[in-house]
Amino acid sequence: MTAIELYDTTLRDGMQGEGMSLSAEEKLRVAHRLDALGVQLIEAGFPSSNPKELELFELLSRETFAGAQIAAFGMTRRRDTRAEDDPALRVLADSFAPVSTIVGKTWSLHLEKVVKVDRDENLRMIEESVAFLVAQGKRVIYDAEHCFDGWHADRDYALRCLRAAAEAGAETVVPCDTNGAHLPGQIATAIADIRAHLADTGVKIGIHCHDDAGVGVANSLAAVEAGATQVQGTMNGYGERCGNANLTTIVPNLQLKLGHDCISAEQLATLTDTAHYLDELLNRTPNADQPYVGKNAFAHKGGMHVAGVMADASTFEHMDPALVGNARELLISELGGKGTVQAAAEEAGITLDDAAARRVIDRVKELEHGGYQFEAADGSFELLLRRESGQYEPLFTLESWRVIVEQRADGKVETEATIKIWIDGERYVRTGEGNGPVHALDSALRSVLGDTHPHLDDTGLVNFKVRILDETKGTEAVTRVLLDASDGHDVWGSIGVSENVIAASWFALVDSLEYAVQPGRELAPPASRDAARPAS
Amino acid sequence: MTAIELYDTTLRDGMQGEGMSLSAEEKLRVAHRLDALGVQLIEAGFPSSNPKELELFELLSRETFAGAQIAAFGMTRRRDTRAEDDPALRVLADSFAPVSTIVGKTWSLHLEKVVKVDRDENLRMIEESVAFLVAQGKRVIYDAEHCFDGWHADRDYALRCLRAAAEAGAETVVPCDTNGAHLPGQIATAIADIRAHLADTGVKIGIHCHDDAGVGVANSLAAVEAGATQVQGTMNGYGERCGNANLTTIVPNLQLKLGHDCISAEQLATLTDTAHYLDELLNRTPNADQPYVGKNAFAHKGGMHVAGVMADASTFEHMDPALVGNARELLISELGGKGTVQAAAEEAGITLDDAAARRVIDRVKELEHGGYQFEAADGSFELLLRRESGQYEPLFTLESWRVIVEQRADGKVETEATIKIWIDGERYVRTGEGNGPVHALDSALRSVLGDTHPHLDDTGLVNFKVRILDETKGTEAVTRVLLDASDGHDVWGSIGVSENVIAASWFALVDSLEYAVQPGRELAPPASRDAARPAS
Repeated sequence: MTAIELYDTTLRDGMQGEGMSLSAEEKLRVAHRLDALGVQLIEAGFPSSNPKELELFELLSRETFAGAQIAAFGMTRRRDTRAEDDPALRVLADSFAPVSTIVGKTWSLHLEKVVKVDRDENLRMIEESVAFLVAQGKRVIYDAEHCFDGWHADRDYALRCLRAAAEAGAETVVPCDTNGAHLPGQIATAIADIRAHLADTGVKIGIHCHDDAGVGVANSLAAVEAGATQVQGTMNGYGERCGNANLTTIVPNLQLKLGHDCISAEQLATLTDTAHYLDELLNRTPNADQPYVGKNAFAHKGGMHVAGVMADASTFEHMDPALVGNARELLISELGGKGTVQAAAEEAGITLDDAAARRVIDRVKELEHGGYQFEAADGSFELLLRRESGQYEPLFTLESWRVIVEQRADGKVETEATIKIWIDGERYVRTGEGNGPVHALDSALRSVLGDTHPHLDDTGLVNFKVRILDETKGTEAVTRVLLDASDGHDVWGSIGVSENVIAASWFALVDSLEYAVQPGRELAPPASRDAARPAS
Repeated sequence: MTAIELYDTTLRDGMQGEGMSLSAEEKLRVAHRLDALGVQLIEAGFPSSNPKELELFELLSRETFAGAQIAAFGMTRRRDTRAEDDPALRVLADSFAPVSTIVGKTWSLHLEKVVKVDRDENLRMIEESVAFLVAQGKRVIYDAEHCFDGWHADRDYALRCLRAAAEAGAETVVPCDTNGAHLPGQIATAIADIRAHLADTGVKIGIHCHDDAGVGVANSLAAVEAGATQVQGTMNGYGERCGNANLTTIVPNLQLKLGHDCISAEQLATLTDTAHYLDELLNRTPNADQPYVGKNAFAHKGGMHVAGVMADASTFEHMDPALVGNARELLISELGGKGTVQAAAEEAGITLDDAAARRVIDRVKELEHGGYQFEAADGSFELLLRRESGQYEPLFTLESWRVIVEQRADGKVETEATIKIWIDGERYVRTGEGNGPVHALDSALRSVLGDTHPHLDDTGLVNFKVRILDETKGTEAVTRVLLDASDGHDVWGSIGVSENVIAASWFALVDSLEYAVQPGRELAPPASRDAARPAS
């Protein structure tokens, strides 16, 4: 079947969603996950918009990706200037990114009411901007904003805009349903007409949809069935308003139900992990009802359903959950079977017999039931493997800890933490200060452990996330703390869960430090570990 | 255009969703809300299944509804019995409910693997069950389970099943995509074929979809375009796995985009309130990104978007939010401008002159630069508007606060918070305990403020999120705390940012309490507040 090119805009359009915020370093991790998933084009952002974006492109330029190419996003030149004099276009031209995606107007209403640009000048803006970037050796993708509104309001003009981009050398023109106003039938009709009209130019057609009418996925599929060969969207449907078209749903639909060719079967099997990883990174509660990857997506409740599934899964399941890396029994961890656990152990250099592997699975189930979540906590998970395999020795024995935070009358905030711990029969009492409870506890612990584990001096906490799990109970609910630590090469996650955010932080902190000093780690070549477990 | 009959199964199929639970009395309230919304058919449940359902039907029998009819749900008679001897069918016959909906098999795979019923006996089960209920004077709706799988696997047999129901007197036959396996094109083809095949019987065609492929809404629309005149679904898409087809999205699509006739314009304008009411009754967090009715459905962030919306809403809005009882929300962000701020102030009933609006923008920019983010903190933003507009008085003057958290030698974790504050020249020193720092500070503050602001007793924290902003600095980075509080009717967000997570929590907590007691809030009847600020 047709090969469909996946264009992910999570890092640009997805970030328009409410409360979406990622550091440049986190965006880099997202790009690598998308590359591993098999996404062909990753739109990283708008390099001219702010320093943070420039920093991201600086970081990206030093990375290598297995198959993905990075796209830089911008817009057509300003009116009445030359493309080569437009600063924003120059940034795209000068960017390392081999792909330039530029957005432009197609809808006469916008020309009149919003940008107040003459119709012919708009055509020149499209043509000259595309031509300039093509001349700079870029693969150029033209996003036609509000194209379907434009096509319905003034078909001829919309087609002229698209043709201007195509004839100027754009590789792909992408009609955008920017307001999410349209339904599948309307999308299919317009795409078929656009495709026929541009057939002589040989340009490829893409599709960019939003979910305002709850049909963003169906619209994208309708466009593909009408001849589009590139689909733009975001992971988990992140995006402004009701979100962008959800690639997490579109990809399995295209590949498993319509027989198109997007990514490999192995890559498709990482879809669920990738989707959950993004939610964790963004500190968002994964949507349990999300098609294909949600925790409930293959959950069966009705007794008859369960009986049916036991008799023959196809009676009550529309596809095999394993194909997208999901599982039928979802209270069970994504780690699923014994084999997976043993493979993970092997990767970490831990020998785990069958009995121990079964203990690990039971322990993981029990902990996940209590709110633990090991996808983003590879450090804590490896410690769990070591405990069950008997290859674990605690750093210390805890007697007690205490944290005091106060804002004094002079307005100054002071934090101190006191720990009382035992190592080799010796008692240590230490007090650390910090600009927060975790920092203070960290300082106190390091003041003891640093002497015996000099390697710790090279490690530090790089990330700290807190999420309340039962959102209906407010501050009385269970709190989950995720910590990321790094030694400058390698990043590992640890987790703690407790009613009390400080206690949860303590658990995560101790795991983080214990993982840092596990046998072999001081010597482990960082790169290999990164390569071995990019997923965590 | 065609009149489309709405069939709501929230109270039956919707209750199969994870964690769904309503008392009989609550289901009664739901039925009345659905009736007020204009839903023509309300499937109340399975009267023979349990006493709670029988109680519900007993209650329903005494109610009067403006336009809705109640449907009782059941299944075809057991094999090798007479319909009139089947206890479950008798319950339907004896029920006050004027409509009987019975589900039966259409897919040969199910006959073999699940129910083990002979193909001809299955046809007799359908025919005799429908005929029996028709003879009892019921309007009969036949739900053909797995009809689309059946149609693809063995079209002739599937059609014979549907014909059996139609010829026995069913008013409507409803092909069900029980596993949510199909895509719009497949649904349209099958419905068109079924409709043509049954044309001679005059039976009406319905549609019942699930969202496993993320196209439940599109499938329902495709079926209507192929001739279905009844749509079954649930409010907010409640239901097993990925949920049922979402009527909250389908209705505006049918009515506003396809021009069909479902409910009155006045009733459509209650859609948002009705959808949120159900979420509250079910104690679920409303999906902010839900099409049409979500808090973010008409939220605008990009400065250009905001400018466009101000110039002409149709430039960036696919329809007028008021038509479904929703409202535009302008997200406050670095990208926003003066128009955004004044529009927001107006919505909050605050008069803001140009100078004040400019001060607000400068303040917001300064705060956002420091890590604040007001999109998810409407409470803190409104306080900021009040401060700059001079319509603000602080709850108290702070002298100092202190939090102590300790894990004692016996392993028990204790938290206490002491606050020293001044109100009207009087000094208050209070200590509160809690299972976390925020909880303890909250208790201490309420022990003082509760006396003068009894309204606070009705408010509580419902969500708590912490995020570190500059991940490269770990625990030394700035920490952002987002709190959501609610009085049971309205939810507001507040934010605090500090190097210290406890200090950040303190700022967010104080904003949350100050917002709760803003002039007017205490006295405002919840309903009107809901209407006034659906976005928050």
